Amino acid sequence: MRHDPAVPLRGMRIIEISSYVATPLSGMTLAQLGADVIRIEPLGGAPDRTRRPLADSGTSLYWSGLNKGKRAIEVDLRSAQGRRLVADLIVGGGRRGGIVISNSERQPDLTYEALRARRPDLIHVLLTGRRDGGTAVDYTVQAATGFPLVTGPEEAARPVNHLLPAWDVAAGLYLATGLLAAERHRLLTGEGQQVRVALEDVALATAGNLGYLAEAQLSSAPRERIGNYVHGTFGRDFTTADGERLMVVTLTPRHWRELLAATGLTDAVSALASALGADFMAESERYRHRKVLGELVAGWFQTRTFAQAEAALRTTRVLWSKYRSFTDLAADGARLLRENPLMAQVRQPGVGRYWAPGSPVVMAGEQSLPTASPRVGEHTDDVLRAELGLSTSDLANLRKTGVIQYPTPTTPTSPTTPTSGNEVGNHVTTR
Amino acid sequence: MRHDPAVPLRGMRIIEISSYVATPLSGMTLAQLGADVIRIEPLGGAPDRTRRPLADSGTSLYWSGLNKGKRAIEVDLRSAQGRRLVADLIVGGGRRGGIVISNSERQPDLTYEALRARRPDLIHVLLTGRRDGGTAVDYTVQAATGFPLVTGPEEAARPVNHLLPAWDVAAGLYLATGLLAAERHRLLTGEGQQVRVALEDVALATAGNLGYLAEAQLSSAPRERIGNYVHGTFGRDFTTADGERLMVVTLTPRHWRELLAATGLTDAVSALASALGADFMAESERYRHRKVLGELVAGWFQTRTFAQAEAALRTTRVLWSKYRSFTDLAADGARLLRENPLMAQVRQPGVGRYWAPGSPVVMAGEQSLPTASPRVGEHTDDVLRAELGLSTSDLANLRKTGVIQYPTPTTPTSPTTPTSGNEVGNHVTTR
Repeated sequence: MRHDPAVPLRGMRIIEISSYVATPLSGMTLAQLGADVIRIEPLGGAPDRTRRPLADSGTSLYWSGLNKGKRAIEVDLRSAQGRRLVADLIVGGGRRGGIVISNSERQPDLTYEALRARRPDLIHVLLTGRRDGGTAVDYTVQAATGFPLVTGPEEAARPVNHLLPAWDVAAGLYLATGLLAAERHRLLTGEGQQVRVALEDVALATAGNLGYLAEAQLSSAPRERIGNYVHGTFGRDFTTADGERLMVVTLTPRHWRELLAATGLTDAVSALASALGADFMAESERYRHRKVLGELVAGWFQTRTFAQAEAALRTTRVLWSKYRSFTDLAADGARLLRENPLMAQVRQPGVGRYWAPGSPVVMAGEQSLPTASPRVGEHTDDVLRAELGLSTSDLANLRKTGVIQYPTPTTPTSPTTPTSGNEVGNHVTTR
Repeated sequence: MRHDPAVPLRGMRIIEISSYVATPLSGMTLAQLGADVIRIEPLGGAPDRTRRPLADSGTSLYWSGLNKGKRAIEVDLRSAQGRRLVADLIVGGGRRGGIVISNSERQPDLTYEALRARRPDLIHVLLTGRRDGGTAVDYTVQAATGFPLVTGPEEAARPVNHLLPAWDVAAGLYLATGLLAAERHRLLTGEGQQVRVALEDVALATAGNLGYLAEAQLSSAPRERIGNYVHGTFGRDFTTADGERLMVVTLTPRHWRELLAATGLTDAVSALASALGADFMAESERYRHRKVLGELVAGWFQTRTFAQAEAALRTTRVLWSKYRSFTDLAADGARLLRENPLMAQVRQPGVGRYWAPGSPVVMAGEQSLPTASPRVGEHTDDVLRAELGLSTSDLANLRKTGVIQYPTPTTPTSPTTPTSGNEVGNHVTTR
């Protein structure tokens, strides 16, 4: 076993029985750190295999994004024999195996209890919707936990959901953290355990960690909806004369002074401070008077082009960014993506070539580059042979009884070799 | 050293030099799994010590939420002697020490290179705004990476930012994951390393992982803003006759059939399917016709009270939740929080008692309960004595030269013992 600091989980083997966002993201995050992640799918693929957005061929871009660098096998999970194969995989894998991530407790032979009876040092990582095992998805958890009622334009009459499934993303990363903590414990003591995360708990914990729940318990004034203003300081979006939009944030007194200097508003704001008896060096005062200050600054942006505004802000330490759409990020042959070392070009069967992200975690100066996601059942034979020692005739028998399927024909865009604009063919590279 | 599976990181010592959300969350997540996290603060506390929301006393509820269960020391970081103390702490801590998390590279003697020269197996975990070290905060990263332009009401003319700092939260959890992966590598090989995460990379990686960037590169139609409809399937918010709001999601054909049965719309929708030549068992068809289907279902909710709607939905497996505000979550003496085993009551100096979340990661059936956050410099003497072996006269000398301060007087609400409605005084309990 080579021990490369950039892929510290090399040698760890994880079986993933999952769908949608959180559990697949947790498996992919660990795969990007070097783990061998084998995804188990029912015959024909899991339901999220067809989830939008889709490529013209019908291949899911969403699925392809969340399962990069995994292996995939396709097994009839309704048959006891199929579940036995999966259980054999879960409890196998040697000292660094015996790890499963799942978002389902429903498979009869694949429960924590059943598997632990076969391998006492099993690490079983389970996502549920609610802590009691009840179902929930990101959208319903959003509704239940407060954020949509304070997100969105001040004048909005309805709740505003996030498009971003933030709770799924956070839950996937909590699962990865919990798995690594449990595996560390097993390395040191030999003991396995179950790790559980409920999607709703992730949202409630975050609402508590950020102070929203404390505020609701202790303050008589409910949290207001304040649109794109930043709570507690001075920040908001602005529009330039040529219709571009920017987000501008000042956190420190220095940011604030520099914003005023760049926009020529120092004297006007100073006069306003005197008139109002306010000290705008304090962020709480900038927040209290955010509307009048906002209108002053907005007036400056409205009479400048984006180029002019950019030139003025560039000389400051003020935090700002232009608003960019996904289309902007992909414009001009994906220039912005190509220039970012996070991205590499992937050739995805059923899709073609596009720029996809590697791991946002850079280890020892290196990061995992993206590789293609597997086709349904792409590694069924490889995995059953290499990991369970099945023979050609064993596989033929499993096919005969329908426990596994015949391989799907290769699509025209099939080569799954990762490619990159920056001359790399390997899993990891220094950028 | 006791090895408890519920706090697998017990014995690990982490020094945290940080502010705002991502890095503090990463430290707290690891503290909740058992690590000893010592937060370093400049004299008077870090700038985020006063960040809103605030308690009436001015104590930050936000800070209190993100630093639970840590120890805190207060040192003059502008003095070389102060930085030397911090460096001594970072490189100390024995075999399980030598770990630092930070969001700043600016302190001259506290860079990765300077610290690694003193302890070659150092693990240095660094958050930056951009990968090149440039600054960015959640709000500017939101603007830069596409989501605000497709979030919010269909008719919104402006970008809609998330109130939730989702990128900070995700980055904090990526940092925790990277730290554990690096520490595992060190356990197995003795080698340390640097782990870096850029806030902007986290957002771009997520936009890529979820398929948005692939879609923008491969599809001619840009992603539309669709309000609270769920992309790709049938889900949206509804209002009842008595003005309550619900989020309802159907992912599977079974969900859809049960929603129609519960709302008495089976025949109407079947007639509509025939008229439109649509097959609503396919989620893509439900998505395509979401508006007309949405209006039919909305009509049902508009003529039912919330109690009637709830009674009808309760018999189904349809995914749904009432929209709740933070105020709703705290209503009735925080009933909803009290009933959730995630929460326990904390007595926070400068704030008082309130219900706060423990760890959303349940390890071996147990979870960390919340404990109070430290006051500025609360553990300065303890840490410098126990970890660096300083004597009473050493501490007096440091006070004389202003490298550390005299302890702040204890506030009236000072006892920091965690309490819980469920009879626990310990760090961890089984619920």
